Amino acid sequence: MRLATLQDGTKDGRLVVVSPDGTRYAPAPVATLLDLLDNWTAQAGALAAIDRFEHDLDPAALLAPLPRAWQWLDGSVYPSHGELMDKALAIEPFKPDWPPMYQGVSDTFYGPNADVPMASEDLGIDFEGEFGIIVDEVPMGTSADEAHAYIRLVVQINDWSLRKLAGPEMRSGFGWLQAKPPCGMAPFAVTPDELGDAWRNGRPAMHLRVDWNDRQFGNAYGEPMAYGFHELIAHAARTRRLAAGTVIGSGTVSNPEYREVGSSCIAERRGIEIVDTGAPITDFMKYGDTVQMEARTADGRSPFGVLKQKVVQP
Amino acid sequence: MRLATLQDGTKDGRLVVVSPDGTRYAPAPVATLLDLLDNWTAQAGALAAIDRFEHDLDPAALLAPLPRAWQWLDGSVYPSHGELMDKALAIEPFKPDWPPMYQGVSDTFYGPNADVPMASEDLGIDFEGEFGIIVDEVPMGTSADEAHAYIRLVVQINDWSLRKLAGPEMRSGFGWLQAKPPCGMAPFAVTPDELGDAWRNGRPAMHLRVDWNDRQFGNAYGEPMAYGFHELIAHAARTRRLAAGTVIGSGTVSNPEYREVGSSCIAERRGIEIVDTGAPITDFMKYGDTVQMEARTADGRSPFGVLKQKVVQP
Repeated sequence: MRLATLQDGTKDGRLVVVSPDGTRYAPAPVATLLDLLDNWTAQAGALAAIDRFEHDLDPAALLAPLPRAWQWLDGSVYPSHGELMDKALAIEPFKPDWPPMYQGVSDTFYGPNADVPMASEDLGIDFEGEFGIIVDEVPMGTSADEAHAYIRLVVQINDWSLRKLAGPEMRSGFGWLQAKPPCGMAPFAVTPDELGDAWRNGRPAMHLRVDWNDRQFGNAYGEPMAYGFHELIAHAARTRRLAAGTVIGSGTVSNPEYREVGSSCIAERRGIEIVDTGAPITDFMKYGDTVQMEARTADGRSPFGVLKQKVVQP
Repeated sequence: MRLATLQDGTKDGRLVVVSPDGTRYAPAPVATLLDLLDNWTAQAGALAAIDRFEHDLDPAALLAPLPRAWQWLDGSVYPSHGELMDKALAIEPFKPDWPPMYQGVSDTFYGPNADVPMASEDLGIDFEGEFGIIVDEVPMGTSADEAHAYIRLVVQINDWSLRKLAGPEMRSGFGWLQAKPPCGMAPFAVTPDELGDAWRNGRPAMHLRVDWNDRQFGNAYGEPMAYGFHELIAHAARTRRLAAGTVIGSGTVSNPEYREVGSSCIAERRGIEIVDTGAPITDFMKYGDTVQMEARTADGRSPFGVLKQKVVQP
């Protein structure tokens, strides 16, 4: 099942079920994705049974599939990314025995085609191509093995970042706040079964192509997460219940072969440049710049559709 | 105006307007506090005009005035607390030129009389007595001077903390996640005008008495915040819009005279013990322990009512 949310003037938008080819939709018998997640077991079957999609889907009318959520927790579990970021930010290497994860802003997820306002061009504007999941209500203390059963939807996320604020906020010990404005989300949220064998052990086995200003920047593979999403759920739920609709991210998709496949954020390319030349060469984004993201399975499917966002002045 | 939320089986509860003495209520003509905050200017006048309170208020029926919010940002702006916590956690002193602030979980604020489940007694269970505000929608880039106008309500918060997880999470640079389960809130949210001269330059000029297991633990004064709440709003909104209903906290209320007035969290008392004897003496909370909080103005009013929560097994 593939879900999207149409603009209707409300903050949560209007939930629709999308055709397998992503071009048509049927209205859902539940108003919003948050409503569906509040009672998934009783309601999801009726949506999954829909097989007539009578309306053309206008990509310009899409909000994020989940335009706002009660909680957004972002991991950072691609080891090659963490190592490069430590170098780029001049942070002491951090080798915890748990998955690094921070709590970010969840009152807004920008739509797939949104113009995204950034406070200043001087703050190191960067994208981060990630995968994410949306969970049902998860009890406190849920184990990783149990956690698979709470994964309702898989999404693709652009975690907007302001790099010049990131280092000082990390050194503060309080974590990121100003460095992490709201994220964007690709058009479609899909159930894990929709991904078929591209969903393996709580990991997305597909490539995420990232284009910056219409030129390919990266095409990293999603599977080599040091922790699967089920393990990220267990980490998040160790001392708290997770509300239905909590979104959990993978962190920037990154592969050890980053010189061949490229990167899913500018900071990682700068990290490579620092390693190679002693200093970064590539600058960050400017107003008017665009980033496009699209994940593809080995058999060429595009489960989440295309995100293309532009950085603009507030 | 003084607002509270009654249990009605829904997650957001039922908004009521509370009498000046805190013992009676009238139903509000708006269903929930989030609904009111979504259209405060058009709706708040009708609530403020209510002067007949026909129902007895049962404290056991209260949820937090805001049972869940789209965002919770907690400052730490009492300098004497920060200095002691650096010592207690063995953290390098951190002297930023901005107000320390982290993003916490907002999908749950426990009610004033809630039993609060904690994952383990071994994690250093602690309370933190704080003040907080609830804002209207705040545009990105709002200045501190402008920010006063967005403060709709003042609240009193118990920021539950798990100290044994706090130090490692700070050192990770990703900030607190497992160390900060959901907070509690005292019964009433009040408009700043309700506080009269106990609201000064964005600061609460009143004492916060904290009792642990029915014995007084602290009675610190709220005014000596290094940054007022208007400055905390400006910090939070530098790179993001704040959704209506965002809650911002002061961090643990603390005074330089902590030896006389006591502390608003156990970690601070342990910090004093470390300074005095080289090691902490006071242990953290155990299952069955209670904490009570009540703020009082100089003329003896209790604007937020009494919070009394008990730590329980999940």
